[in-house]
Amino acid sequence: MIVVMKVGAPEDEIARVSDEFSQWGLSPEKIVGKHKVVIGLVGDTATLDPLQLQEISPWIEQVLRVERPYKRASREYRHGEPSEVWIETPAGKVGFGEHQPVAIIAGPCSVENEVMIVETAQRVKAAGAKFLRGGAYKPRTSPYSFQGHGESALGLLAAAREASGLGIITEVMDTADVEKVAEVADVLQVGARNMHNFALLKKVGAQSKPVLLKRGMSATIDEWLMAAEYVLAAGNPNVVLCERGIRTFDSKYARNTLDLSVIPILRSLTHLPIVIDPSHGTGWWEYVPAMAMAALAAGTDGLMIEVHPNPPKALSDGPQSLTPERFERLVGELATIGKAIGRWPQPALALA
Amino acid sequence: MIVVMKVGAPEDEIARVSDEFSQWGLSPEKIVGKHKVVIGLVGDTATLDPLQLQEISPWIEQVLRVERPYKRASREYRHGEPSEVWIETPAGKVGFGEHQPVAIIAGPCSVENEVMIVETAQRVKAAGAKFLRGGAYKPRTSPYSFQGHGESALGLLAAAREASGLGIITEVMDTADVEKVAEVADVLQVGARNMHNFALLKKVGAQSKPVLLKRGMSATIDEWLMAAEYVLAAGNPNVVLCERGIRTFDSKYARNTLDLSVIPILRSLTHLPIVIDPSHGTGWWEYVPAMAMAALAAGTDGLMIEVHPNPPKALSDGPQSLTPERFERLVGELATIGKAIGRWPQPALALA
Amino acid sequence: MIVVMKVGAPEDEIARVSDEFSQWGLSPEKIVGKHKVVIGLVGDTATLDPLQLQEISPWIEQVLRVERPYKRASREYRHGEPSEVWIETPAGKVGFGEHQPVAIIAGPCSVENEVMIVETAQRVKAAGAKFLRGGAYKPRTSPYSFQGHGESALGLLAAAREASGLGIITEVMDTADVEKVAEVADVLQVGARNMHNFALLKKVGAQSKPVLLKRGMSATIDEWLMAAEYVLAAGNPNVVLCERGIRTFDSKYARNTLDLSVIPILRSLTHLPIVIDPSHGTGWWEYVPAMAMAALAAGTDGLMIEVHPNPPKALSDGPQSLTPERFERLVGELATIGKAIGRWPQPALALA
Amino acid sequence: MIVVMKVGAPEDEIARVSDEFSQWGLSPEKIVGKHKVVIGLVGDTATLDPLQLQEISPWIEQVLRVERPYKRASREYRHGEPSEVWIETPAGKVGFGEHQPVAIIAGPCSVENEVMIVETAQRVKAAGAKFLRGGAYKPRTSPYSFQGHGESALGLLAAAREASGLGIITEVMDTADVEKVAEVADVLQVGARNMHNFALLKKVGAQSKPVLLKRGMSATIDEWLMAAEYVLAAGNPNVVLCERGIRTFDSKYARNTLDLSVIPILRSLTHLPIVIDPSHGTGWWEYVPAMAMAALAAGTDGLMIEVHPNPPKALSDGPQSLTPERFERLVGELATIGKAIGRWPQPALALA
Repeated sequence: MIVVMKVGAPEDEIARVSDEFSQWGLSPEKIVGKHKVVIGLVGDTATLDPLQLQEISPWIEQVLRVERPYKRASREYRHGEPSEVWIETPAGKVGFGEHQPVAIIAGPCSVENEVMIVETAQRVKAAGAKFLRGGAYKPRTSPYSFQGHGESALGLLAAAREASGLGIITEVMDTADVEKVAEVADVLQVGARNMHNFALLKKVGAQSKPVLLKRGMSATIDEWLMAAEYVLAAGNPNVVLCERGIRTFDSKYARNTLDLSVIPILRSLTHLPIVIDPSHGTGWWEYVPAMAMAALAAGTDGLMIEVHPNPPKALSDGPQSLTPERFERLVGELATIGKAIGRWPQPALALA
Repeated sequence: MIVVMKVGAPEDEIARVSDEFSQWGLSPEKIVGKHKVVIGLVGDTATLDPLQLQEISPWIEQVLRVERPYKRASREYRHGEPSEVWIETPAGKVGFGEHQPVAIIAGPCSVENEVMIVETAQRVKAAGAKFLRGGAYKPRTSPYSFQGHGESALGLLAAAREASGLGIITEVMDTADVEKVAEVADVLQVGARNMHNFALLKKVGAQSKPVLLKRGMSATIDEWLMAAEYVLAAGNPNVVLCERGIRTFDSKYARNTLDLSVIPILRSLTHLPIVIDPSHGTGWWEYVPAMAMAALAAGTDGLMIEVHPNPPKALSDGPQSLTPERFERLVGELATIGKAIGRWPQPALALA
Repeated sequence: MIVVMKVGAPEDEIARVSDEFSQWGLSPEKIVGKHKVVIGLVGDTATLDPLQLQEISPWIEQVLRVERPYKRASREYRHGEPSEVWIETPAGKVGFGEHQPVAIIAGPCSVENEVMIVETAQRVKAAGAKFLRGGAYKPRTSPYSFQGHGESALGLLAAAREASGLGIITEVMDTADVEKVAEVADVLQVGARNMHNFALLKKVGAQSKPVLLKRGMSATIDEWLMAAEYVLAAGNPNVVLCERGIRTFDSKYARNTLDLSVIPILRSLTHLPIVIDPSHGTGWWEYVPAMAMAALAAGTDGLMIEVHPNPPKALSDGPQSLTPERFERLVGELATIGKAIGRWPQPALALA
Repeated sequence: MIVVMKVGAPEDEIARVSDEFSQWGLSPEKIVGKHKVVIGLVGDTATLDPLQLQEISPWIEQVLRVERPYKRASREYRHGEPSEVWIETPAGKVGFGEHQPVAIIAGPCSVENEVMIVETAQRVKAAGAKFLRGGAYKPRTSPYSFQGHGESALGLLAAAREASGLGIITEVMDTADVEKVAEVADVLQVGARNMHNFALLKKVGAQSKPVLLKRGMSATIDEWLMAAEYVLAAGNPNVVLCERGIRTFDSKYARNTLDLSVIPILRSLTHLPIVIDPSHGTGWWEYVPAMAMAALAAGTDGLMIEVHPNPPKALSDGPQSLTPERFERLVGELATIGKAIGRWPQPALALA
């Protein structure tokens, strides 16, 4: 930490402040600048809050954190090595990670009925997906919109899993539902609206299924990694980060702004794998293929794409869903780039 | 709803689309423009999702909602009249509403110990506050930061209530805690980070204590009112809206941007009372007085201000807390404006 | 400046970096932390660019500026004292400053014709305004919108000045027009869209009329003060800062978000006077009174309010313009607060 | 245009409003909804301002534009066909367009001296670039930062053009400099900070060199296309749009948020070619390769990349500049993707 004193801070106040830091077990080192005095703090500062230090004296202008505020999520925590999250699916283990082929998650926004979810699962599996997405519990802006079929939809997801061999990723929104969802899902999704639901983060951190953690609509990268830290600190090391678009000043054409720069940025900050969701990230299926291609070229470890057998009849998110036919075509185009950059599954592995 | 067809939409597709709307019980009315055809939909469109309608045909360019997406929260729902939320406190009933004096909520970020919370309560009561704020459960960005004393702090709030006569406002973060918190609190706070925690909104809507609903960091006004609609639709009519600053591109000096324009805007959209929180809204106590004055002059129904007996030692949010002395001074300054605009409590009432 | 080295930076690289800084005339002071080494730089760092320093070595993680990037605009430059900008108007000198009464600027978006501008000037003068605003050159999003009457409108402003006794504030958009505009205007306005037009800033800095500098739609406070620094550094000490709303994620109801927190923030950073424009700041006349009241209560030195004799017929910005009647009523309401906080002109002065 | 009347609008006011529209040459068509009356306006509404129409009656709730606010920039203007901007360079014609290979622009932020600019030009040409970028006039946040060598740098660009065979793209910031810059440059750049400098847009629209128009830091897509419309309406049909990152709430790691979704969005709205600038778009050279790859995969027509022979010694923008070596490596990686998607120049053409 670096403590910057205001211009004109009295000598004895600087001394008093330094003393106080010493009592916290820190070694203060003073630098006398041309206009200002700066105090460097050496010691274990990771759990200190810069805002709290600032209050020690009205003569403190600012306190700058030089270290990262997260530990387990940091790349340094694994000595620079990426981590891989491996998931047992009926069709074998699939890994999310920087040295793995890109893994595709596909499926509808919400589980509507058994025929629909099973057929979608089989279609996307045939096209190359490894995981089925589909919501049993749906966060909806309006209380009057379809809220998901809830518990009964979990049973349908289990059926689709068995019928297709895909792993299941589904969202949990309430601490009260975590156990129920974890019985069926291979990966628990924490949605963008709940990224700062700390009670939920602790709860999914205390169970054993991997967690797909979506970035909040206006979460900074640091806040997102701190949310991951909540899960990691609670004991669950299997966290996958998912970018799904952020809120900016222009939502007329794309409903969110898909921030693909997180790919190279997260690589330098964290060991955790990265998934990109171009469906929520743009909000319109017409824009999904270009953004999926871009994400793959930028180095994502996974893609999450909404596919619905009949988007006009979808109970939610129709406008951003691809038809199975368009999804197949997109996977073909992705393969061209995936092979060129060496991130596409080997046919042998695909059959495994 | 207004359905805008794309340039060149074929006649028979327009006919087909109109037919489909008719089957939904809507009366489509076609306007043939110079370049485009537009279809107006007459009927009960409030529960329809524009995005869903859009999917009926690839020839639909956009669907515009002309009606508001909320009902119970709308000003029209009460025929233009403001609602008032009255709260039974040990010192008598206090109301939040457009025709009531401004009500002041004050207290620390978190409940630290009994002496601290009881003394703060007595100090802010003496200065003119009607409610004590204080967190038992605290949403913190870092899992390593102080998370609140939880259940034991609820007991301390009860003690402070009894000792001071103030009503209690405290945050609930987990559906599992709603009952526990509602036993002690006079008003349940849903924090900014949980404004989109729909499970929690439904739960606080299903109990009887009034709810203070903070605006999410990047929530639009419509989304905020839809969150209120969740509570209202679940059966709880007593919702107070609280602006606490939004996230913008500049957080160097103020940690959030306090959006005071919500005061006149909400007045035209909703009947619900409005509280402004300049402490979170700026993040620094130095800026709190100017923003509190501004909020009062703009017509707020309540103010929520952080006060801590010893900010440098606060376990959270020290930098944005006023000392009791500064709070007293601020209330004096507020009184000058409050009296000038006729929103200040009568001395007789203040003593009541 | 504080230079933070990456974890694991080699000793000899730290030595080399320190040597390089010494050659720039800076005294580097090294602090060896638990994980990282930090170098404090003492010397004249105001004109150094942190981004440039960063490039000295790939082992540098970040360079933090501890000093402000502006000099002449800083409060320290005047030893903590506010500056006052005094303007000679036909009706006497009027000052913008923290110890002066609030000064009101009113008038239409654009100068439409002589009758309209002269009558508006007389009406707003009678109500209490000291300055007439009115655009000869108008920045319009569309090339097909009315662009202002240009040079001929300057003559009309001169006529309105003479007829009313008000000072004239009008916008200049092109370096080629600065001289022409300065002949007529008492204050040159640099609009939000030109806040980063550095050629224009230099040009208005090199002439003698005071400058009203609007904040760019997405300008940080530091960038705004740096824009002021351009004018000050070019030799013109008379700069007034004008907040007119920033761009955020929600523009459905208010077209911009009026950031009133700049009032206490600028007070601590700069000596320059502050004007608030609630008309552009909200975009709708219904919201103007509440925001004008708020700005006054928060301590603004001036208010800029759009007034049009017949808003429905305005060639631009009708929706945010008050009628003269509504403006008179607003000034009456402002007086109540202005007197309560001691910032209202004395009647004697008003007549002067 | 669609005019939505408020609930309860009186019959005769609706009639009056309709009459007024008729007098403007529009055909109003009334739809009586369950709660509201809506009036569709048929006729030439492209040059009408919705905000102005709104003022016709206080009973108008909102006016929705159904047509695009730009004409010449719209895809429809060219009947759905993309336009191509062809530029005569010493090494032959190069085209920007959807059916052309991706064109690469490279070079330093600013022209520092002859050796530097000529050598950089030769290096980037050898690696595959078609255009040299390099600033003679530099927009800098601080008046104390290097402002570019101005006119003398234009001569150096001419020398680099001759030595390398590359076309020259350089920024113009002042209407007074347009002619001077147009004598040397093959393409005039209007920078992000001047996207709303309408005087400059008109001036570059009135000369004959193609214009590269950068998106403003917080410009919506509509505003950006309206800025292009200024140039097109002034008579210059050769406009290339350049995305360079927008301002969002998080600038800690990437200095801007590169919005790649503009690629598919602009394709559907406009015929104009698209260039992506990942250097300004991220602000750090480490992130440039991933974003360049992504832009190419998403379908950009051009890439603009900062390259400096010695970034640590750069007079501006060092941190976001690639070395020539890194640029060569990046072009190699881009080729892999470019060939896979059929947007890479043929070797024969490359030699031409």
